[in-house]
Amino acid sequence: MSEVQELGEKAKEAAFKLASISTEVKNGALHAMADALLKESSKILEANQRDIEVGREKKISSALMDRLLLNTSRIEEMAQGLRDVAALKDPVGEIVRGWRVPNGLLITQVRVPLGVVAMIYEARPNVTVDAAGLCIKTGNAVILRGSSLAINSNLALTEIISDASTSAGLPENSIQSVSTTAREAATELMKLNEYVDVLIPRGGASLIRTVIETATVPVIETGVGNCHVYVDADANLSMAMKIVINAKCQRPGVCNAAETLLVHKDVAEEFLPKIVSDLRGREVILYGCPKTQSLCPGVEAASEKDWHTEYLDLKLAVKVVDSLDEAIAHIQKYGTKHSEAIITRNYDAARRFTEEIDAAAVYVNASTRFTDGGQFGMGAEIGISTQKLHARGPMALEALTSTKFVVYGTGQVRQ
Amino acid sequence: MSEVQELGEKAKEAAFKLASISTEVKNGALHAMADALLKESSKILEANQRDIEVGREKKISSALMDRLLLNTSRIEEMAQGLRDVAALKDPVGEIVRGWRVPNGLLITQVRVPLGVVAMIYEARPNVTVDAAGLCIKTGNAVILRGSSLAINSNLALTEIISDASTSAGLPENSIQSVSTTAREAATELMKLNEYVDVLIPRGGASLIRTVIETATVPVIETGVGNCHVYVDADANLSMAMKIVINAKCQRPGVCNAAETLLVHKDVAEEFLPKIVSDLRGREVILYGCPKTQSLCPGVEAASEKDWHTEYLDLKLAVKVVDSLDEAIAHIQKYGTKHSEAIITRNYDAARRFTEEIDAAAVYVNASTRFTDGGQFGMGAEIGISTQKLHARGPMALEALTSTKFVVYGTGQVRQ
Repeated sequence: MSEVQELGEKAKEAAFKLASISTEVKNGALHAMADALLKESSKILEANQRDIEVGREKKISSALMDRLLLNTSRIEEMAQGLRDVAALKDPVGEIVRGWRVPNGLLITQVRVPLGVVAMIYEARPNVTVDAAGLCIKTGNAVILRGSSLAINSNLALTEIISDASTSAGLPENSIQSVSTTAREAATELMKLNEYVDVLIPRGGASLIRTVIETATVPVIETGVGNCHVYVDADANLSMAMKIVINAKCQRPGVCNAAETLLVHKDVAEEFLPKIVSDLRGREVILYGCPKTQSLCPGVEAASEKDWHTEYLDLKLAVKVVDSLDEAIAHIQKYGTKHSEAIITRNYDAARRFTEEIDAAAVYVNASTRFTDGGQFGMGAEIGISTQKLHARGPMALEALTSTKFVVYGTGQVRQ
Repeated sequence: MSEVQELGEKAKEAAFKLASISTEVKNGALHAMADALLKESSKILEANQRDIEVGREKKISSALMDRLLLNTSRIEEMAQGLRDVAALKDPVGEIVRGWRVPNGLLITQVRVPLGVVAMIYEARPNVTVDAAGLCIKTGNAVILRGSSLAINSNLALTEIISDASTSAGLPENSIQSVSTTAREAATELMKLNEYVDVLIPRGGASLIRTVIETATVPVIETGVGNCHVYVDADANLSMAMKIVINAKCQRPGVCNAAETLLVHKDVAEEFLPKIVSDLRGREVILYGCPKTQSLCPGVEAASEKDWHTEYLDLKLAVKVVDSLDEAIAHIQKYGTKHSEAIITRNYDAARRFTEEIDAAAVYVNASTRFTDGGQFGMGAEIGISTQKLHARGPMALEALTSTKFVVYGTGQVRQ
């Protein structure tokens, strides 16, 4: 039996027991996991140091190195994250709805854990702890498969929180990491239908694509965001300036950052030179349509590819549109259904945009950067779903649950 | 461009328009579709006759022939089904929840159509009309791929309801059927991620398995039911008789029929000879564990395979268990998480069974045969989900919707 299969079998067994563990015990385990992270931090830093050294040998980028690096304050953040999750309301056991049918059967729909959650993710080792915490809170067993770059950190973290959780009364093997770094192990995990109830990939577009193409287990697609801000003919232009700058520059490397600016032709002449000059001052590279180029000399020409690109960088494509219809059609064609914003004072334009744009989050007069579990006030986030099944947009605890019907009878049979 | 790709592109375009069509227009279309079925029934019967003839040449079973056959009363049922769906509440546009966050952003979660729904299904041509009706009601475009055995019936039905729907104001191509019967067309549909938002297979275990293994689009798994009835030590045995007989015999060919009977050892001696004799009177073939065989001479021996089998027939596996724990463990091991029942008067046993059994529907003192959208009072059913994502158990209109966040701001940017 392969490692992955073995992890699957053990996880299933743990999940069976976890489903009826009380909230009290789960919260106790989350605090024990937090305590253990702090107590064992030297062990974590040591393991992380080994990853950092391998990273240096492999000459990985400084951005990647930064994501990989753990230090005392990052460990404290992870521990605090677990305590924050402990403080959230447990969604398991909620009676979502219930009713009685004419023959007297009492039908209740009850929230239950998903069972076994698998996570495949890239460099940041904190995902190991965050994901484990959210899964434990919701009564799921979790199988973690992080980046091979962070393998030592991930295995050390897993060992520490797993040991702490079982000492606090959780079933053995509730939290497991795949130790095999070979790609085959990830592929096997994606096809482990017998044991895995859902797989959540977190990472760049190519990881997500691989998972979608390979997985036979149910997947929640997360993350890719080619987001637009549309400045309408009736926009408050100083508000539009603030929002475009925030959506592009506040943190350009994340999925809810804006990648294309659409501007209505009626305000292009007034708005574009201003925003372009401001963005250039912030070192943003611009790729414009011919109209943009004629209004803002020196802007590079945008190609078809630019309209499709999630730059995740200080780069922005800019296009002048003739109408709200053209803006909606452009987003419809090139968007990835993540986060889309309109800046307008016009009621009808706002209404049409929110109704016709098909995306996880549609904004009127606000930055796309708000698409986030924390910003939405959900208290936690396991990822941002860009698919339409199960959960869409920022996913918190509820997205890690399913329901079952519990039906109470008095001897009813079907006629 | 292949037929399937073309259908996908057209469906996407239709879905875009359908999302903002009013409930009034959708309901009008459903009635127009019903009228057209009745008006064009001779055309439908003619097409069906061609399928029946091909079926005869191919010597398909009489059960299959019955599923394939259309007649006036079946056409009337389909038409009535569409009118019933028109009478249901439209879930699209519902504000599922909403709240304001500290910075003043008003966050609303709104119910929206899924977009493009693909259905792959086996013989019964009525699924063509039922599925189209439910998809139209929920604002989805639908691509139908029925069995090649019913191809003439399905294409005739699709043409009639599609024409009626566009005459009533729905976008062109809201309802389409794949006319290519080659298996490759189905495979292509399963991988049409650019256009298909969800694929719902309806049919036997082997169809479902093929879809799970092949599809790259999100799938809702339906249907396979290896369901158990457990007669506890504290059962009311006359109630248990009624329920076991109903769960096995009322309609043995469906997924919520019972396939294995588990009996607590304390009541086996009293209960088993009675139920076995009654079931034999109803021509049920029994496969028993050694204990069952010793109590009921002449019962065939059950093999490991029997515990796994969804007979969909007048066959039942029978096992005596030592305890509730053994019953739960057996169901945990062999069940398909569809519908499971306990017959008991014991509060603790009922509580443990409902909590520990992981299935779409768990019953106390009622037949498993109730797992059905109609029986649950949902007014409609597109299938019974046996997976844990998105929808679980009988799926009605809501399962054909997603949500999006619509966020109203006044210039907020992220700090």
